[in-house]
Amino acid sequence: MKRLSILGSTGSIGMQALEVVRAHPEAFQVVALAAGRRLDLLAEQVREFGPALVSVASPEGAEALRDRLRGLPVKVCFGEEGLAEVATYPEAQCVLLAVVGATGLKPALAAIRAGKDVALATKEALVMAGALLTAEAAARKVKLLPVDSEHSAIFQCLQGGGASMLKRIILTASGGSLRDLPKERLASVTPEEALNHPTWNMGKKITIDSATLMNKGLEVIEARWLFGVDVAHIDVILHPQSIVHSLIEYVDGSVLAQLGPPDMRLPILYALGYPARLAHPFPTLDLVRVAALTFAPVDRDRFPCLGYAYEAAAMGGTAPAALNAANEMAVEMFLNREITFAQIPEVISSSLRRHRPVGADNLDAILAADREVRDAIARTYRGSAGQAS
Amino acid sequence: MKRLSILGSTGSIGMQALEVVRAHPEAFQVVALAAGRRLDLLAEQVREFGPALVSVASPEGAEALRDRLRGLPVKVCFGEEGLAEVATYPEAQCVLLAVVGATGLKPALAAIRAGKDVALATKEALVMAGALLTAEAAARKVKLLPVDSEHSAIFQCLQGGGASMLKRIILTASGGSLRDLPKERLASVTPEEALNHPTWNMGKKITIDSATLMNKGLEVIEARWLFGVDVAHIDVILHPQSIVHSLIEYVDGSVLAQLGPPDMRLPILYALGYPARLAHPFPTLDLVRVAALTFAPVDRDRFPCLGYAYEAAAMGGTAPAALNAANEMAVEMFLNREITFAQIPEVISSSLRRHRPVGADNLDAILAADREVRDAIARTYRGSAGQAS
Repeated sequence: MKRLSILGSTGSIGMQALEVVRAHPEAFQVVALAAGRRLDLLAEQVREFGPALVSVASPEGAEALRDRLRGLPVKVCFGEEGLAEVATYPEAQCVLLAVVGATGLKPALAAIRAGKDVALATKEALVMAGALLTAEAAARKVKLLPVDSEHSAIFQCLQGGGASMLKRIILTASGGSLRDLPKERLASVTPEEALNHPTWNMGKKITIDSATLMNKGLEVIEARWLFGVDVAHIDVILHPQSIVHSLIEYVDGSVLAQLGPPDMRLPILYALGYPARLAHPFPTLDLVRVAALTFAPVDRDRFPCLGYAYEAAAMGGTAPAALNAANEMAVEMFLNREITFAQIPEVISSSLRRHRPVGADNLDAILAADREVRDAIARTYRGSAGQAS
Repeated sequence: MKRLSILGSTGSIGMQALEVVRAHPEAFQVVALAAGRRLDLLAEQVREFGPALVSVASPEGAEALRDRLRGLPVKVCFGEEGLAEVATYPEAQCVLLAVVGATGLKPALAAIRAGKDVALATKEALVMAGALLTAEAAARKVKLLPVDSEHSAIFQCLQGGGASMLKRIILTASGGSLRDLPKERLASVTPEEALNHPTWNMGKKITIDSATLMNKGLEVIEARWLFGVDVAHIDVILHPQSIVHSLIEYVDGSVLAQLGPPDMRLPILYALGYPARLAHPFPTLDLVRVAALTFAPVDRDRFPCLGYAYEAAAMGGTAPAALNAANEMAVEMFLNREITFAQIPEVISSSLRRHRPVGADNLDAILAADREVRDAIARTYRGSAGQAS
């Protein structure tokens, strides 16, 4: 029985994680939950899974939730402190980090410092603070378990050891919701069009990131930290079916791949159950029915964000944190219809070009870079200071 | 430095193994070689690789080879005893078994009993005597290292452990040289047509086995013994590109696959270097250039031999040895133009139906079944006794 804290339980990954827990009551117990503002859903989750601790975004939310859960033996807290409490809850052995964006960084660090294994669905934490988080995890001998399907694939392929014989990581990309759209139409894409992903059903932020391929750029940086491979040895190829979740190539030319239906419950189950594999009741892969797996090069002109991620990784230090902040702001502004789809890469590129990276071995430097970039973007596009994480 | 004996050094696998050794003089040393009748090539190999022991098929061949190698410090022996001597040569740590067919069984057993790791390219040995060979290998803690690309793929995928969590093995089949031929043309196929394999360049026996899909049937039985999985959990799918060499599915629905160009030097290098992976100078896989990997079901009507292999495995005992003997005879008669291509499955099916299997836990029972089947086929088709292994 593994005891879990789940941060982001009312989001897409959080809800699928609870499905996994529901399917395996013999293997998992939920001891703490954190969510934002979806109080009705969170209250239901508390009733079903019986955590002892729960946290929401605001004090008003906490008050409202306490009302709804009256009589249940659950402590309700809120805000950044509440998130930290859930991330470090003494009873938890493994913390699933599934909040969106930079918000996940502090709880990730807190969980690691508290000696918890961290199942990492929030890639932004590693993008912003890969050196810091991996060093802290190594020092405390806690595991960082990838939940992204791509990194889960690589992690599974590397279970045979042989990381020292690794030559290349090949991340697959579906190409996102706009991959078949004529290039000249990209500038006028609406949020609704960009949110309609062909193979994966995910949250809004990651779906837009998929459409710009920034998601893949963030994954390149994430892979660099998770697997200790220079980004020069991490390639990206288009694979529209999202069946081959990623591949590794060894020095002897042998390639290992992990495949499965595009269903996030599978990498979630693997991360939470690790190192065991638990039987699952979800649909399995039928290659004969899939019939063909196709691969194509990425058009770097069409998807400039991918190149910016490689640039930020090469710049090092706080540059990936700056990249991430610019991207989070750009996606938010696009979803709010403050900028066009074509402006997303412009916001990122100009932020990266303005940024002077410093060492990223401490949280203050990383958060300062994050705030600086957000403020500059807000001044330019909104005429006010931005909202920092 | 690993010291190798190679049985079948002038065959397709043997020559490719020596290419691998040539590319890695720092890793491998050849201490003994055995071949059949290609004396000129064998003499060249002895001059290049300097083994201390070499064996050929006949006493006349040994005499002729001694003439050619006069002055070199190499012992020349011959026949079944010579093969056994090469298989058990004290200096050898690993024996590559790459002779064709049932001939490999006795040397395989001898090598295992002498405590050698065995790199197994001759699948017929495991098909005939899987229970016996795997029991002896387990008792002596020697490794059976698969050289077949399919079994190497599975072996590589299983390096992460988790054999207990394995649900299914999926072997891929190219479909062989006749896969695109209209079914009504199959009966009149010539040996030359059947020997023209689309993706793999291999010996004659295995190329005909590929055309009938009996090769895949033998691999199903081989996989059963190598990985301890009931044949009911071993599937075969068509994959014309021969890039995905095979796949495994775990209980959680996750599928691992091993990929590479269709180049036997890669699985040979892996088996000989195991557990290390050595950098190689051969072409690597470019998935973007491959562009598409396709999969299709096997037409069991078109390829009845595959079904016979499953039947023989289900019958158990000496039935797979009988299947193998019938197939070896049928292929030989087809190559000699004594029977048509369509008669290959007929010979196998009638032999299997006539066979009364007994326990296959000792060599005598297995060799008796092998001889009985060969004799019966020879009486029916040649009016004389067959040549036993």
